[in-house]
Order: sequence, then structure tokens, then C-alpha cells
Amino acid sequence: MSKTITILDSTLRDGEQGEGISFTAQDKLKITRLLDEFGLHYIEGGWPGSNPKTDEYFRLVKKEKFKTAKIVAFSSTCRAGRPAKDDPNLQNLLAAGTPVVTVFGKTWDLHVKDALKISLEENLKIIDDTIRFLKNHKKEVLFDAEHFFDAYKHNPEYALSALLTAQDAGADRIVLCDTNGGTLPAEIQEIVGAARAGLKTPLGIHTHNDAETAVANSLAAVAAGATQVQGTINGYGERCGNANLCALIPSLQLKMGRQVLPPKKLAKLAALSRRIAEIANLPLHNQAAYVGHSAFAHKAGVHVSAIQKNSATYEHVNPELVGNKQRVLISELSGASNLLYKAKTMRIALQKDDSQTKRLVQKIKALESAGYHFEEGEASLELLLQRMLGRCRPLFELISFHVTNEKFDEKELIVEATVKIKVKGREIHTVADGNGPVSALGRALRKALTADYPQVRNIALSDYKVRVLDGRSGTEAKVRVIIESRDSRKTWGTVGVSTDIIEASWHALVDSIEYGLLK
Amino acid sequence: MSKTITILDSTLRDGEQGEGISFTAQDKLKITRLLDEFGLHYIEGGWPGSNPKTDEYFRLVKKEKFKTAKIVAFSSTCRAGRPAKDDPNLQNLLAAGTPVVTVFGKTWDLHVKDALKISLEENLKIIDDTIRFLKNHKKEVLFDAEHFFDAYKHNPEYALSALLTAQDAGADRIVLCDTNGGTLPAEIQEIVGAARAGLKTPLGIHTHNDAETAVANSLAAVAAGATQVQGTINGYGERCGNANLCALIPSLQLKMGRQVLPPKKLAKLAALSRRIAEIANLPLHNQAAYVGHSAFAHKAGVHVSAIQKNSATYEHVNPELVGNKQRVLISELSGASNLLYKAKTMRIALQKDDSQTKRLVQKIKALESAGYHFEEGEASLELLLQRMLGRCRPLFELISFHVTNEKFDEKELIVEATVKIKVKGREIHTVADGNGPVSALGRALRKALTADYPQVRNIALSDYKVRVLDGRSGTEAKVRVIIESRDSRKTWGTVGVSTDIIEASWHALVDSIEYGLLK
Repeated sequence: MSKTITILDSTLRDGEQGEGISFTAQDKLKITRLLDEFGLHYIEGGWPGSNPKTDEYFRLVKKEKFKTAKIVAFSSTCRAGRPAKDDPNLQNLLAAGTPVVTVFGKTWDLHVKDALKISLEENLKIIDDTIRFLKNHKKEVLFDAEHFFDAYKHNPEYALSALLTAQDAGADRIVLCDTNGGTLPAEIQEIVGAARAGLKTPLGIHTHNDAETAVANSLAAVAAGATQVQGTINGYGERCGNANLCALIPSLQLKMGRQVLPPKKLAKLAALSRRIAEIANLPLHNQAAYVGHSAFAHKAGVHVSAIQKNSATYEHVNPELVGNKQRVLISELSGASNLLYKAKTMRIALQKDDSQTKRLVQKIKALESAGYHFEEGEASLELLLQRMLGRCRPLFELISFHVTNEKFDEKELIVEATVKIKVKGREIHTVADGNGPVSALGRALRKALTADYPQVRNIALSDYKVRVLDGRSGTEAKVRVIIESRDSRKTWGTVGVSTDIIEASWHALVDSIEYGLLK
Repeated sequence: MSKTITILDSTLRDGEQGEGISFTAQDKLKITRLLDEFGLHYIEGGWPGSNPKTDEYFRLVKKEKFKTAKIVAFSSTCRAGRPAKDDPNLQNLLAAGTPVVTVFGKTWDLHVKDALKISLEENLKIIDDTIRFLKNHKKEVLFDAEHFFDAYKHNPEYALSALLTAQDAGADRIVLCDTNGGTLPAEIQEIVGAARAGLKTPLGIHTHNDAETAVANSLAAVAAGATQVQGTINGYGERCGNANLCALIPSLQLKMGRQVLPPKKLAKLAALSRRIAEIANLPLHNQAAYVGHSAFAHKAGVHVSAIQKNSATYEHVNPELVGNKQRVLISELSGASNLLYKAKTMRIALQKDDSQTKRLVQKIKALESAGYHFEEGEASLELLLQRMLGRCRPLFELISFHVTNEKFDEKELIVEATVKIKVKGREIHTVADGNGPVSALGRALRKALTADYPQVRNIALSDYKVRVLDGRSGTEAKVRVIIESRDSRKTWGTVGVSTDIIEASWHALVDSIEYGLLK
């Protein structure tokens, strides 16, 4: 039994085939750096030649150095009737310039006949020719045996002969793929065992979640002798997704005694999962095993009382091992303790049973139930507390703003904002344009404040997010705007809520600037 | 091996312990009727006496007749130091008036000592006394062996002695619970086998998803001899949730050859899952196995071209067996095959190697790389195709629009939109207000179209989503707006992209109305 398991992350390739996912080349580069920093072994970046974005990614990634990760380019075996060396797909694959390549080939007779429409013998020739060609170019070659489990169930001799062909041609690893994702763990274990017995080449496992067993399938394959696990962060991928590395890695390491990552890296898992969900711009599934917001959240009274005596009574692992934390879901009392905890980190002294504390808790609960979300808008929360405690006065008074959006003839677009405010007793009236209403409004406001607060020039808006609350009421719905700002020293988040996106943005903008100037 | 598996649904009890879930008594009643209609065998409704809502549910449910389902009330074994007949929990349990009751008891020595703080012997007495008392009242009694797998790993003799106590006291079924949800399938199978060997009483399995293996764990338990599976619809439940019945039932029936439901009922699974997600007011996870919106959605060009030849090439089961359907997604990862498939469903005839088809694919790829996303905006895609093929002319011509947002004194907010368009040769100029700029613009546009297209009144906007693309450039970033619309017959999605949220919304609005009027 091998103690060490390597991980191939396919978030950028198979993960991007998930519905609703689309990464830019810059996103892909960012994710590559995060995965390398986290300590993963292989990062599959895409199929060179399939679209301009992927090609740009491979151009960019070539210039970087990585600590642990090898970059992998992906392609198919060559087309029938043409030697590998003349195949444009394989030319693109080499042009990507990665140390490692994956090629997928057919092992299921049904696919060879129905999808490729070639003879079974011809398919083996293709596999052989492709792998030899790539080995001649000194690549580390992973052979993805597409549909291997279905293939084995239909025609075990042919399925195994495809693997032997890949082995003889010099593949460095043979990856058994449950491409349709419907195989159950018991079958996976049996079939991986059969492949293991017939081959010398190291095996990998690549599963999909169509029966909600992708994680269990990968674990069963490791038990049967696979030493590489392929998957994606948060289980992104075509249809029901790929095997979820965020669940697999901790189970392999903490429960099955395999060596995957140094423990210090494993403790960054929850942060990695959230960061990549942000880049994918998808909400992270609350219930996600190990890393989800609810994964160690206790609601039932019986459970909460028991974990206070011994947390092992209702927790399968210590949440800190994967960088997550225990939560107890809100009662009036825990609301106050949360606030006290927050206030302390902001150096605001509050007393637990104080009437002022109760008033603050009530105000915050009312705002949260109206759609505010202070987790991402902590600077707004701090300003709110300071204002309610009478410790900070507004920097200016709004007299009016006016934003106008005009469009003519499906072509010309005019966006203009005016702001009238009172600063230190004087009325100031400014105007600015922009490429959208919020950018125009932000510019006009900065212009109005520059004379009195020249430091406003140092504050930049670094992110802008909009979430429609209760989408079901269509364009009448409330929206929540989160603005992330930064200066040379720090980053802070502010929040605004309104049925009017301009007004919601205004609140978040004003907090952004006030907080930046106060600090 | 038993061919027949009964299902106990705990959506109303364990499911409601999930974060963000709260059912009213009426919701619970509605769900009970749906589960019975679907053909499930046991419905666990809650813990009588734990809160007024649950008690109201049991009062209401007593008056109903069900086709297949038996209603189950849940409680714990009696407290130590008092006979079962005097235990208020068990009095409440009987008062619920259900034919079946579940009582959970401790089997893990750690819990007996640390949570109950009684002797191991005393705990066995409690189990015995509770079950005999309930059997004397002619109840069908299910004994939930809480934490059984952890218990067995720590002290197998004691864990099994608790089960034997329950058997001797007359329990009708012993349910092995992986309460902390962290056990892996191989261990589950081994430990269920050990329990099976030592007992005559039929076994059930109750798992949680803390290692993302709850479904596989339940399947492993069935393979080892359990004949009842407990879980929740959509996997709702404390922390990472319970075993997901929507994945379990089809795998048991379609892959493991067990008899769970008549095939006609199984074909209602996807509808049931969506209906219950609606009642829970939670979005259904797109990637959910079998029932998710993406479960049979194909995006990679290679896959789409193969499924058109034979859908088994990339589908593990026929989606109709579970009431779901095949979908093909359009994106920059996809090629001409995806477009041809889509065009066919829209009754647009395109030829594969046609120069027109290539032009359309290029246009779509260019728009996607500019931020359009046609997966959620299929109606915009259809309009685009129809327009590029010269098959539909715009309903009107935009001369100009003008949206204005004014705010005074931190109080008054004025939002107004004017629209000037040419319809059938006549210029029409309208104005409307709204609670936000997009709602005002939508109203003005509808007003302008009503005289010529009175059916515009039947089109309602049902959802509105905004995504900031490349948020890093702050308020200068592009935004993508998705609008979902409906009339009395159908629902459709449209998309618009711009740096200006008003302009992006305008494009999605115009498509929404054009599509609605054309259909």
C-alpha cells in the first residue's frame, strides 16, 4: 500500500465545464497560483487550441515559477487516419509548453464504434502512436482511460487491452475515468483491483458525481491501489460535477492515513475553497463537507449542550484541521456574544448586559433582516457602532445627488452624476461622467471632497458586488451592494441596501470613503 | 438478500435542523401529503413537545388519511431515575397519536459517561424500559442507535449489548445511526455486517454527510443487510445534511436492483425535489445528482457531439426515469454541435459545415468572451439566431431613453425613466417612475408598447440577477444582467452586458419583451 497520494486538480479544465462557470485567463492564472501555494501536485489548465482564452492562459503561465505544482495541458489522442506527428491537436498540446500532458483515449467498445466510428484495432493504434509521440518529446504523459468502468463492464478484455497499449507505449500513469459518473463504490473497488492486478504502471482515479458517490468512489479506488486522485475544488464540473477535492483530501489524510499535504497546508483548505468560489463567482454550498459554512454549525439544543461538554460528541473531526470553525446558531444571547466579540476586535468596549448593547444588537438584527450583511461589510458595521455610540460625526451632509443615464439610437450613451454636499459649513456642487451610473457618482463625490480631504485620492475601489435579494419580485426587488476599497495599507468592505441600486451603491460608497478617511 | 427496501423520510425532523430551514405546521402538512403521494413508507414528523409548531402538526396530521405512508413521531429514551411510564417526553410521544414511534438511545460509552453522566448498566435499563413501555401501547417501535459506528469502534461489546437490549425489549427495527457523519463506506459495511450477524431484528441505516459519503454509506449498509434507509429530500439536515433520498432511491432501484417505489412514482422524483426546495425556500443545488437542473446538461463539444449519436455515451441513466431531462449548454467551450442541437430545439434548421453556422458560432463565442452567458439567457440566444438569420425584425426602434435618479437630504428619492421609441412608424414617448432605475425603465417601456402589443401586460418579470464581471476594476467593471420572465404558459431567460448597469438591463428587458411577444 502506498502511503503517498498525489492530487491532480482539474478545476481549470473539467471544472470549467460546469454550468455557470467561466474563467478569464487572468482568473485561471490566479487560481493556479492559489493551488500551487496550497501545495497541490498537478494543475490541469485546459485544452490548448480549443479557445483563445485557454491559449492565453498557457502563454501567461509559462512565464511563472511554481513551488510544488506541475502544469498539465490536456488533449485527446490523435485522429484516426493521420500519424500523431501531423495531428493539429497534438501540435497545440506541445505548443502549450507544459512539462506534463494528459491525453484521453477510448477504452469502451461502444464509444469506439458509435462516437469515433473506427475499428477496435485502429483505436489501439491511435493510443499507441499518440503516447509514443509525446514520450519522444520528453513529456510526462498521463493517459486518461475515458469511460473505463463502463468499458470494463461491457468488454473487460478490450478495456484492459487499451490500458496495456498505453503502458507499452510508455505512459507514466494510467488514469481510470468514470466519465459518466454513475458507477457505485463497490464496483469501482473491484474494477480498479482488476486493473491493478494486470498492470505495472501507477494508476490514477478520476470520478464524477452523477450518483452523489464521486468522493466515495475515489476513496474506494485508493483502497484498491490508485495513487493519484483527480478532482476539482468545490466539486465543480460538467453535469453533477467532479470528485470534490475539498472533501477528498481531508478524508484521505485524516481518516485513511495517506500522506497528501503538510498539516499546515491542510489548515488552509476552507480559505482556499472560499477564495475559488469567489473567483468562480458562485456561492459556496453551505452544507459542503469540511469547508462549508454550516459544516460545524450546531442547531439542535441537545447537540449544542453536548458539544459544550465535549466537542467530539457531535463533530467528526476538529474543524481547525481544515481551517473551519465551530458555530452555534443564533439565539438572542449568542447574538450579543457575537457582537461583544466583534466590538472587542474593533477596540470598542461594550458590556454584556448593558441596555446600550441590547439596543445595538436589535439595530443590527433589524438591518440584517432587511438585507444587510456585515460579514463582508465590516467597515460599515464599525461605522454604525461608532455613530450609534456618538463617537464619529459624518464628514459631510448630503443635500442632493442626481444621476442621469441617456441612450440615443442604440449607440450613444451618456452617463452623468451631480453631487451637492455641505462640507465644513460650505456647499459644494460637482459633476462627473462615467461608464456607468455608480462610477459617475463615485467620481463626483470624490471631486466634491478633494479640497477638504485630499487623502481621498489614496482610496481606490477594488471590488464591486451586487446581489439581488428575493429575486422573485423581479426588478422591484431589493439589492445589496458590497464595495471593497483599499489604500496603501489596508482593504475594507462596506455595504448598502435599497430597492434602488444607485441608492444602495451610494450608501456603500459613502461608508467606503468615510472609513478610509477616518482610519 | 432482501429485494425490498423501505424508506423513512426525516425531512420534517432531522431535515429541519439544517441551517436556514424552518417549516410552519402547514408547510409540514403539505410536505407530508407530497411524500405520501410519492409513495414513501414512513414520514418522521418531529419531536412532540419540543415546540408548539410540531404539536400543531401532529394535531393536524392525525385527521388525514394517507395512501402508503405511516406517520412517525420521534423522541429520546426516558430519563434515568424515573420509570418510562412517568416520563413526560414519552407521554408527549404517545399523545402525538402516530402508529409508529422512533426513540433514540445511546450506544457509545463516551456519550453515556460524558453527556448522560450515568452508568453503562443504567443506560441499558433505560433502553429496555422505554421500548417495553411503547410496545405495551401497541406502537411499531424503531430504535435509533445513536452514534452506533463510533460506539462500535470504541467499544464493540457495549455497542452490541445496547442493540441486543433493544431487540429483547421488542423493538420492531434497529436503526444504525452515523450521527456525526464522518464514517467512511468501507467501515460502514463492515460494522453493519457485524450487527447483522449478531441480531434477528431487521436493520435500518441513518447517515449524515460530514465526509460527503452519506449516500455511499447508506448503499454500503444495504449491501451488508440493512433493509430500511433513512434520509431527507435534497439532503437537508444539521451541519452537512442527512443522506439525500433523491440520490439514494434511484441508485437503490436502478443500479442495485432493489424494489423501492413503482417506476411511475420514481419518474416524479425531480418534481418532488423541486417542490420541496420551494417550500423550504432554498435554491435547489444545480449539480444535485439525478434531479439537479445541470444533472443531464452537456457543455463540452465532444460530449454533445457523442450524445447526439447515442445518449448512453455521456449519461449514466435515462433522465426520464427520474423525471429529469437532457440539456445542451452553449458556451465558448462548445462547438458547432451544441449550436446545432439548440437550433433544432428552437426549430431552426442549420447545417453543420455551413458558412452561416460558422459565422453564428463565432458571433456567440465573441459575445460570451465579452461577458454574455447564454446558459441562463436562452431566449436572448434564440432572438440572436433569428435576427442573424433575418427571420425576425425588431418590434420597435429605440430613439432614446433617459433615466434619472435623484436623492435629497438623505430622505426623498426620485426615480424616473422616459422612453422614446418608434413602433410601426409612429413615435411614442412615455415616462414612468419606479422604486429603482430598472423598474422605472421597464414600466416606461411597457407603457410605450401597450397600445400596439396589448399582450405585453401578460409578461411578468420573475427574477433579476446582476453579476459584476471582473469585480477587481471596481465600479468601472462590466456587469451582466439576467432577467427571467414568465407569462401564463412559460418561463424564459434573457441577458444583457455593459459597463452601465442600466444599459445592460435595457438589453435584457428588450429581449424579454420581444421574446414574450413573438412566442
